[in-house]
Amino acid sequence: MGVTAARGFRAAGVTAGIKASGTPDLALVVNDGPSLAAAGVFTANRVKAAPVLWSEQVLKGGTVSAVVLNSGGANACTGPLGFQDTHATAEKVAEELELSAGEVAVASTGLIGVRLPMDLLLPGVATAAAALDTAGGEAAAIAIKTTDTVHKTAQATSPAGWTVGGMAKGAGMLAPGLATMLVVLTTDADADAAALDTALRAATRTTFDRIDSDGCMSTNDTVLLLASGASGTAPEPAEFDEAVRAVCADLARQLIGDSEGASKDIRIDVTGAATEDEAVGVARVIGRNNLLKCAIHGEDPNWGRVLAAIGTTDAAFDPDRLDVAINGVWVCRDGSVGEDRDLVDMTAREVVITANLNAGGAAATLWTNDLTADYVHENSAYST
Amino acid sequence: MGVTAARGFRAAGVTAGIKASGTPDLALVVNDGPSLAAAGVFTANRVKAAPVLWSEQVLKGGTVSAVVLNSGGANACTGPLGFQDTHATAEKVAEELELSAGEVAVASTGLIGVRLPMDLLLPGVATAAAALDTAGGEAAAIAIKTTDTVHKTAQATSPAGWTVGGMAKGAGMLAPGLATMLVVLTTDADADAAALDTALRAATRTTFDRIDSDGCMSTNDTVLLLASGASGTAPEPAEFDEAVRAVCADLARQLIGDSEGASKDIRIDVTGAATEDEAVGVARVIGRNNLLKCAIHGEDPNWGRVLAAIGTTDAAFDPDRLDVAINGVWVCRDGSVGEDRDLVDMTAREVVITANLNAGGAAATLWTNDLTADYVHENSAYST
Repeated sequence: MGVTAARGFRAAGVTAGIKASGTPDLALVVNDGPSLAAAGVFTANRVKAAPVLWSEQVLKGGTVSAVVLNSGGANACTGPLGFQDTHATAEKVAEELELSAGEVAVASTGLIGVRLPMDLLLPGVATAAAALDTAGGEAAAIAIKTTDTVHKTAQATSPAGWTVGGMAKGAGMLAPGLATMLVVLTTDADADAAALDTALRAATRTTFDRIDSDGCMSTNDTVLLLASGASGTAPEPAEFDEAVRAVCADLARQLIGDSEGASKDIRIDVTGAATEDEAVGVARVIGRNNLLKCAIHGEDPNWGRVLAAIGTTDAAFDPDRLDVAINGVWVCRDGSVGEDRDLVDMTAREVVITANLNAGGAAATLWTNDLTADYVHENSAYST
Repeated sequence: MGVTAARGFRAAGVTAGIKASGTPDLALVVNDGPSLAAAGVFTANRVKAAPVLWSEQVLKGGTVSAVVLNSGGANACTGPLGFQDTHATAEKVAEELELSAGEVAVASTGLIGVRLPMDLLLPGVATAAAALDTAGGEAAAIAIKTTDTVHKTAQATSPAGWTVGGMAKGAGMLAPGLATMLVVLTTDADADAAALDTALRAATRTTFDRIDSDGCMSTNDTVLLLASGASGTAPEPAEFDEAVRAVCADLARQLIGDSEGASKDIRIDVTGAATEDEAVGVARVIGRNNLLKCAIHGEDPNWGRVLAAIGTTDAAFDPDRLDVAINGVWVCRDGSVGEDRDLVDMTAREVVITANLNAGGAAATLWTNDLTADYVHENSAYST
């Protein structure tokens, strides 16, 4: 399952001792080929962790033979020595598996500004290499968890005989990121690096890029797609792109469903926008409004918060033509009071906010969470 | 005190019954002249409450003879009927005081999307008119409170014989706004509308515009400055501008100190920026980072959150040259680990974060609050 659902991959998850909790904290994913094609997308944050700087270089070659991931430390804001640690980690993987370090991607998650305990991490790499298994996908998914309460895997198989599988931890990407999001996708389809890059960028644009749990972008977000070609089948591009998208969407939905302290998963559908970019922008502003996120936590259909949020954007709309529905009840019509707010049932975990800008034909969906006291508790005690 | 500290003004605060709590909810401020010059700044939100739309028109004339303010209802997103309610309120003030309704500014604060109880509000205007007093400033400041725990007034008197006074409620302005911010400033200096406008815009730019408690912009934010000329003294412009700025800064600091649920007041000093706009932009992104706000609530000097926030901006800086201090301890140097974080004492209510971008000579200061479980509780039960 997960990263070992597709043929040609082995994985492992072990306890190197990086985390004080003593839970698994090191994962290794190896592509046994015959192809080693790969693509990746990384955080847009200008403050990038050492493993992101390293892996961006690795991915430029379009070839990845292994990915090593650790929880328990982000290796971000650790300076040149932190970068040396990432390099040494890739070298250790290369040594254990007789690969080139330049084809080993590295991903890390955890506290920023702390050096990794290399005396524990490097022996952990050897342990992980020894534990590699074609059924190791679940163990790997478990080892990359930080504050995740459950591990996340997904997969899709084509009638043509190839599979896309993946694992994820954290929440958010590119704008967002409760904790860091790390994702590794694998496929046994025979696709080159350019095809993988096209599929991955199209998929992340409408999945991981459209979850925004708390508006905070990580220094470490990484999404990788590795192809072994072990199925011997070259996929039909549209079908392959859709399979990658479906696996990403599945994992993204799991991330939102497991966000720190959240009690509600909120889907924001913006319709009637002049452009898709404006629809996304409006959805993001709604999804980042702390007052609205608190109101939804309180199961309060406070649509005024939605309008106040929309009003801060420069998207095309007329304030007197805004319509807003909460769970299907159009509580705001033409920028003013609509249907009775008492008709709105917000008891379920999933809440849908629909905002029609009545300014065009474009639409977008973004997922976020409510803001809770548990979120505050979890994040006020994070590094202490 | 407050709006009646300066000569030429009377004020009142009464209970009209708009608030279910039965606490004072209607304030009236009257300028008895001889001058009626005035200036105003309003929310930048494109979804503007009826009283904002009304008062913006009034202020275009540069003349304001009275301001009527209510708590208990924002009269925002209430459509044409809501605008009629604002108009009727101004007409009622004009009738009671024998003024022109076109010179009566209106301000409202409370829940969005609910019509005001005009059957209670209009009689309240009559009650307030009868209660007007040259010592009514404190009663007026009390009547505009919503979730404020204390009322806020400030004043400054020049050796030249004129005074600037004011009252405020809420927190935030133009970008921010926990609850709506309403501010009325008065002066007995003899200054024309243009001079008032210059002084007010310069003052709000570096005071109310630089408090950002929770990143949420209200539909109702209003700041007015009225001059009676009753001192008979035309102020020296620089001295007058500074007095207006000082009163605004005093009120802004009081607002941050009374933000919903906050346990910390956080001053963010961004230095070494290429431009002042970039300094403000970086400070705002830091001040809106929920993860950092939670960390500060937990008295955790988690400087990695500061770097991750700065990294999301497009300001000029080199990630490897960022320095960050928390309460004077430079916990981050050159984008990496600096002084020992255990040296940081965060027990006091006020916390100072200094971020040096090392990219130029511009600087800016912004104030925000921590994110607490109390904030969540207060805002998840706001309209229910």
